[in-house]
Amino acid sequence: MEKFVVIMAGGVGSRFWPRSRKTSPKQLLNIFGENSMIQDTVYRLHGFIKPENIFIITNKVQKALIEEQLPELQPDNIIAEPVGRNTAPCVGLSSLIIGEKCSDAVIITLPADHLISDEKSFLNSLEVAAQYAYSNKVLVTFGIQPTRPDTGYGYINIGENIERSVYKVNRFVEKPDLSTAIKYLDSGDYLWNSGMFIWRADTIYSEIKQHLPNLYDGLNKLLPGIGKPEFNSLLKANFPNFESISVDYGIMEKSDKVFTVKGDFGWNDVGSWESVYELTIKDSADNAVVGDVFLSDSSSNYVYSPDKFTAVVGIENVVVINTPDSLLVCSRDKVQNVRRVVDHLNKINRENLV
Amino acid sequence: MEKFVVIMAGGVGSRFWPRSRKTSPKQLLNIFGENSMIQDTVYRLHGFIKPENIFIITNKVQKALIEEQLPELQPDNIIAEPVGRNTAPCVGLSSLIIGEKCSDAVIITLPADHLISDEKSFLNSLEVAAQYAYSNKVLVTFGIQPTRPDTGYGYINIGENIERSVYKVNRFVEKPDLSTAIKYLDSGDYLWNSGMFIWRADTIYSEIKQHLPNLYDGLNKLLPGIGKPEFNSLLKANFPNFESISVDYGIMEKSDKVFTVKGDFGWNDVGSWESVYELTIKDSADNAVVGDVFLSDSSSNYVYSPDKFTAVVGIENVVVINTPDSLLVCSRDKVQNVRRVVDHLNKINRENLV
Repeated sequence: MEKFVVIMAGGVGSRFWPRSRKTSPKQLLNIFGENSMIQDTVYRLHGFIKPENIFIITNKVQKALIEEQLPELQPDNIIAEPVGRNTAPCVGLSSLIIGEKCSDAVIITLPADHLISDEKSFLNSLEVAAQYAYSNKVLVTFGIQPTRPDTGYGYINIGENIERSVYKVNRFVEKPDLSTAIKYLDSGDYLWNSGMFIWRADTIYSEIKQHLPNLYDGLNKLLPGIGKPEFNSLLKANFPNFESISVDYGIMEKSDKVFTVKGDFGWNDVGSWESVYELTIKDSADNAVVGDVFLSDSSSNYVYSPDKFTAVVGIENVVVINTPDSLLVCSRDKVQNVRRVVDHLNKINRENLV
Repeated sequence: MEKFVVIMAGGVGSRFWPRSRKTSPKQLLNIFGENSMIQDTVYRLHGFIKPENIFIITNKVQKALIEEQLPELQPDNIIAEPVGRNTAPCVGLSSLIIGEKCSDAVIITLPADHLISDEKSFLNSLEVAAQYAYSNKVLVTFGIQPTRPDTGYGYINIGENIERSVYKVNRFVEKPDLSTAIKYLDSGDYLWNSGMFIWRADTIYSEIKQHLPNLYDGLNKLLPGIGKPEFNSLLKANFPNFESISVDYGIMEKSDKVFTVKGDFGWNDVGSWESVYELTIKDSADNAVVGDVFLSDSSSNYVYSPDKFTAVVGIENVVVINTPDSLLVCSRDKVQNVRRVVDHLNKINRENLV
């Protein structure tokens, strides 16, 4: 069984403005400690996946930055999509390229920007999922054991326990409201949808053929170019025509061979400044602080100000992100709306700030 | 009747950090419009006081800055105290210098950092006060007709109405709590203590002799140097020995010849960022904004960010002051505590930020 990893790293993470920018997206920032999230995503695979079997699918802007952060990877394995087309074309492209190398390769598809605190448990679960996907030619997703009624995640309703931590998937459900999330948590039949997928190259390719025939036809146009100099021009000519659709909606919700491996390894998708606040060590007043900051009569804030002195007086539950060219002051319960700032900046053509 | 004005401009205004600094104190900032408050204080006397009769008492750091902002004043009239010694020595010094020019001169003593919206009414009140102080050889203070139960001002309890807007002063009272302030407002017998004083040079000098004999003796040591080159060295040698005491506590509360002229000319001492918020034009969500600012789902904030883009999301009743080297985020009801930031910075020897 030959294992490959595909890391999807196309997003900007606009909810992390003003730290995340087109040229310094969320997964390339060192939000926690010294490494960026994409570096941690690669480093935790050490000894489990050969470096030459790690691929990253990204965009033109990020490709050079990723090569810089991850010099141990082969530059050819860092593939820039000509345009963003959601996750299904990305998955199709990776299965095409890896399938050409090894048709029964197990492909582990991971987001670039999550945290995992128990790496050993994560790798154990990966091995279980890889084995099951390889032997049974099925689609496997990682379902995370919920620890709270989180309304920020999609959920997986699980059915029969097949073996060890492998379950049949009944259905995927959208982000719930709080009362529904509490029911999900109490029932024990729902897991968080982590967006991590494990399947064989030939399995996913035939699923694409069945559920997304247009994408399948498009991918086949790239086939003659694999490994050849003309591949990039073929990609450039055809990829923009691929339908923009997520792998969840386009395949996972339609296929009848979907399974989940239940994991419990301290996973967090770090979806907003609120997640960063939760994951950062606090002082006695529950403030999480990075940089040159003085707090008076203030509690439960996240304050980031590495370059400039910041004083916070009489403030609670607020996120302050002070960067060289922009400042964000945001209520902790409104962090999802940080996107609106980026929308506004795009609308008024202030590209230098996004 | 020869009228003089003495503007007291020694303070830093640490509640206006991070805009106010030792080298850019509150009264020299253009917080409202194009002029600084000290410029407005001088300009509104135009046609009422001869420029050569306007004196400013300040400190060494501010003297050059004030000369720069007010080139129409005589540099010799801008006097730097060697050290700060509260208002009584400052008042003594001005009465000594002006009294030597004209012993029955009327001296109008004004803070450098207040706003007055009705200048005509202000000058009318000044004329009434000057006439009364000149003819009756008494101490006159401006009492402002209260418009709200403000707990940030000292109050004057007034007695008999002598003539026109002149009242006898019963007593001065400290900043009240809210219920007391409401009683004061309802009674009609209390005015805000504006810190503006009007008296003859000879009157205040004899009051100093009576109530602050040590200060009187000290001032007399300077007498031989008035108008001569050795004055500065005499000042430097003697001024630091003067008792540090306010004119309110040292003289006004003790003298039996204190009167007040009731004024109603839109006075505000601009004591904090909250005052600035109140005095600034608001948008439809009651936000007052200066600079490059985007607000989303936010109301009743004061945001100052002229040099850098600032986004405020889901925030209410907060002051944000974003300057090139420092940032303040402060609850509007905690603006008095901005001083603590300056105290902290002094304590840890970060002189460059105060």
